[in-house]
Parts: sequence; structure tokens; C-alpha cells
Amino acid sequence: MPIQKLRRIAEIIKQQKKITIVSHIIPDGDAIGSSLALGMALGKLGIRVQILNQDEVPKIYTFLPESSKIKTEFDFAPETIILLDCSDLGRIGSLRDLLPKQGLIINIDHHISNTNFGDFNYVDTGASATGEIIFELVELLNGSVDKDMATCLYTSILTDTGSFQYENTTAKTHLVASSLLSAGADLGLIRSSLWENVPLTSVRLLAKTLKTLAVDPRGEIAWVSIPFETYSKHVFDLEHIESIVNYPKSIEGVEIGICFREFAPGKVKVSLRSKTKVDVSLLAESFGGGGHKRAAGFVSEATLASVMDTVIKKAQSYFN
Amino acid sequence: MPIQKLRRIAEIIKQQKKITIVSHIIPDGDAIGSSLALGMALGKLGIRVQILNQDEVPKIYTFLPESSKIKTEFDFAPETIILLDCSDLGRIGSLRDLLPKQGLIINIDHHISNTNFGDFNYVDTGASATGEIIFELVELLNGSVDKDMATCLYTSILTDTGSFQYENTTAKTHLVASSLLSAGADLGLIRSSLWENVPLTSVRLLAKTLKTLAVDPRGEIAWVSIPFETYSKHVFDLEHIESIVNYPKSIEGVEIGICFREFAPGKVKVSLRSKTKVDVSLLAESFGGGGHKRAAGFVSEATLASVMDTVIKKAQSYFN
Repeated sequence: MPIQKLRRIAEIIKQQKKITIVSHIIPDGDAIGSSLALGMALGKLGIRVQILNQDEVPKIYTFLPESSKIKTEFDFAPETIILLDCSDLGRIGSLRDLLPKQGLIINIDHHISNTNFGDFNYVDTGASATGEIIFELVELLNGSVDKDMATCLYTSILTDTGSFQYENTTAKTHLVASSLLSAGADLGLIRSSLWENVPLTSVRLLAKTLKTLAVDPRGEIAWVSIPFETYSKHVFDLEHIESIVNYPKSIEGVEIGICFREFAPGKVKVSLRSKTKVDVSLLAESFGGGGHKRAAGFVSEATLASVMDTVIKKAQSYFN
Repeated sequence: MPIQKLRRIAEIIKQQKKITIVSHIIPDGDAIGSSLALGMALGKLGIRVQILNQDEVPKIYTFLPESSKIKTEFDFAPETIILLDCSDLGRIGSLRDLLPKQGLIINIDHHISNTNFGDFNYVDTGASATGEIIFELVELLNGSVDKDMATCLYTSILTDTGSFQYENTTAKTHLVASSLLSAGADLGLIRSSLWENVPLTSVRLLAKTLKTLAVDPRGEIAWVSIPFETYSKHVFDLEHIESIVNYPKSIEGVEIGICFREFAPGKVKVSLRSKTKVDVSLLAESFGGGGHKRAAGFVSEATLASVMDTVIKKAQSYFN
């Protein structure tokens, strides 16, 4: 992406007196980390900032500096709005109804599916996380990131790359991560909060779920399932449960890993992952869902047993 | 560490015609990755190289370029020997008996416990992995690392930092990782080999082991155990089993995580991890073992039940 385009956005931002930052529903580490870091940078420029999200900050990210500044309701009427990590306007959920008819929309994202819905758009699909872009933007705005911004942006990148394991990890990702540690990103705090603060019941849920592990006769598909009875008995952060699908996927020879979880009676969330060959977004689309080639999903209202049966048969058809 | 000292070692290496590279018993990703990368760099200089280890390359690391060149027996009598990732000469195991009385020993390591046993020593305790040092050494020797060396060194750093999660991860670590990806390190190959190639029985062993999870009444110590009957029924790489101790440690409020595994009838390996307060190397030493503040261990020949009882009681005494 041409840096000039980001420089132009930085210039426009500097001309504003009030800015509203919004990110997507069910916010993840990148949505929250990049919102907070940008909010801090704008605040330092004397801009009045409100950071909004339809949903509360998940408990696992409340360790981030200034996380309590993310609100679900407006302090002031939004005019200039920066949307972060949203591929389209629908991603901000119910907040969309509150957007003004007039006003400036700046769209900063790294998703390939971004619809360029803003008045100004900066979509760098080569960036591992929106936080990787915000690092550059903050340098253009403030000269450099401070310790708190660095902790937020390091968390953005860390969570969106699965701790530098996903294929979006590039040489530039590590270069930015290096700058963030140099700027004082608190890896000790991040470590103790993300990886050493898991509820006991979350580990118990993992143990129960791994017991359900099954592999199809040809070894190409593996899955785990969580019936509502198990699901409702445990306390966990969504981050913990969403990573369970990596266990079936991790098995040698397996191409598709699946997690079926009945999150409400008769409502099943199906998470699909693939290694190198199968485009699971097509599989998800055939059930009304969507996603990426290697990670997709959908929600079904059939019974757990029937969803499992249907999805596994459909997945098997990809190997015939 | 002064780069001059490493430059001096590079000059000495360039004067050699034959070099033997040796690393420690039960080799890990750093031992193997740094041995292979240095071997390739020396080969390019026209130096005759043999790479030795007392033990075979673990299956999980056989994906590394030229991994079959690591032998357990000598091709030629060693004279100039470079020991990598060994804190003392004992770490090379039975190969120690085969070392010549005369000859040059170069010691390159990152462990704080290194005894500086070599004729030339380069011990950088700030390096996340020996691979991080070898990256610099190869640059001094050859100007730059090539694609295969980069894959080996990225694996060194990745495995010794627990995928950039341990506290040895620094700004420099990420800087080197960035250079290695730029040099062509094959993260796709590393990913599919390390994280997507787990034997099914290894995941089944994890499921069985997590079922044994227990926490002491005050919530400060958590442990899992693997009786020999379970252990002997499963196939796994040591890397997989050694990471199981992270599950009890990950629980909120827990300071000490322990894994007890009966790896032979009546022989129990006890792995100890701590988060921030307890020095588990002292706990291990009180049972004849050793290690670091945050990661230590020992082997006991008592019964599994009695080892568990004794160690947990001793661990509890740290909180009184």
C-alpha cells in the first residue's frame, strides 16, 4: 500500500476536533487493541475522542491500558468516524443505526473482503492485523508510539497472527513487533493476561471436549463436539473456545478440522478449518455461512446430532 | 555481547579445514536448527563439516533441510569442535569420551549457566536461542543467510521462545525473525511440520492427561499425571508431551504447574513450571534435579503416587 495514502489520512485526522472510533461486534484483540492505541494517539493531539463498540470488552482484554474507555453508548454525536477492522458497515452491528447521514467516514482495515465503504479507505491486505496499520498511522500522527500504545498494538498483532503462527505473519509483522517491544510493549503483562489467566473450568471444558475427538475412516476430517449441557456448565472466554478447533485440525493427515458447539438449546455454531487444499468458505456458504478459505463457519438450528451428520457427509464429498 | 568477540571467532573458523559441530543430548529445535544452519554456512566456505549428536534427530524435526546430515558417529576424527547450545561439556553425553585431548573447542551458547569451558567462548545470555547468535555468526562468515539456513534458524528461535511467548523474546528476537523471513524462511513448511502434523494418539494422550487435572485447595498449585500404562499406549514426540505442563500452569491464580509422567515402570519425570514468584529450580534441586527459576525438573524412582504426594507437599510449603 502506498504510504502517501496513509499520510493523507493522517493529515485529514489532524484537522478534526472530535473523532469517533468504532470497531466490529464481538470484538477481538485486534479490534480492541487498535481502537485503544489510535484513541490514545488522537488524545495526545488534543482531539476529543470517543471509542465505541456494540459489545462490551471481553474480560480477557480488560488488562489493556484504557480499556475502560471503550463504551457502548455515545458521549457526543459522531461526525468524523474512523472504522477499524470492519470489512463493511454492517460489522459495527446496531451502532450503524446511530451513524449520521452526513459526516466523514474513514475506513482502515486489512481484510481482503473490505468493500471500501468509506470517504477515505486504507485497506492493506498485506498487513497481519489492523494494529500493524495503526502502528504506521500513529508514527505519521505522533512521531512514535508510547509504551501503552505499544502494548495495545502488540496485542493486536499477537492475537490476529495466533502468536506469529498464521500465514499472515510476514517479515514486516516481525519488524513492527520488534519496534513495539523497543517502545516498551509489556509482554509480561500480555503473557500473564492472555495465556496464564485461563479459568479452571475452561481447561475442564477443553478436557471434556477433547474426549469427543473423532476422525473419519480415511483420516481427512477430524472433529470435536460440545453439547449444550457441557457448554452451559463451564465458564470461559470465547477466545478459549474458538481455539479448540485447532486440536482436530492439528492431527497429521487431517485436512479439515471441525468444532460443533451447541451454544443454546438447538443452536449449533460450526467452526471449520482447513490446512492447504479445501476451501472451507464454500462448505460454510452451502449452509448459509461464510468466512475465509482456511477458516469459516455458520450457525445451524438443527439438532447437534443431525448437524454433525450433515456437515461431515458434505465435508467427505470434497475428497471423492 | 561485543560483536568483536564473535568476529574473532568467525576469523578462527575461516582458518579451519575441518570442523565438527556438536550439540546436546535429547536435541531440541534450537540444538538441531542452529547445528544445521552453521553446518551449511561452513560447507559454503569449503570447510569439511560433520554434525554430531549422541541422539537421533527427533521425528518432528526431520523436516528441516539437511537434517539427515546429523550423525551419531564420527566420519573423521574431530580436531576443531564447535559446541552449540551446551552449558557444559557433559551436555554432549557419550560423545564427550570421543573428544581429542588436543584440539580447539569453540563454545557458543545462550544459557546463563554456561561454564565457559571452551578455548573460545561466546555466551550471549540475552539471545533468545543459540540460533539467534548463529544468525549473526553466519552473517560474519558468509555475508548473509540463505533460504535453508533461514528455515533452520527460524525454527531455532520459534521453538526456544515457545512461538515468541516466553520472556526471552526481545526486540532483537523479532528483528532477527524478520530478517529470516525476508531471507526466505519457509514458515508454511514449519507450520505444517510442527503444528499440523501431530499424531492422533498424541492428542488422545493429551485428552486423557487433562482429565487428571487437579488443583490444590488454595489454588496455587495445579498438576496432571500420566501413569506408565497410559504413557506406553500412546505415540508422541517429546515436544508434545513436554508442553502438557503448560496447561496446569495456564490456570488463573496458579503459580506452580506440574506434570508427573511415569516414563518407565517406577521411573517418574517431574516437570515444574512457575509464573512469577516461586523459584522451581530450588524445588527441583531438593529432589536432586535442576533447571531454571521458571522451568525445572527431576527424575524420581519412587512410585507415581508417592512422588506426587511428596512433591505437592513440598511445593505447598513455599506458600506458607
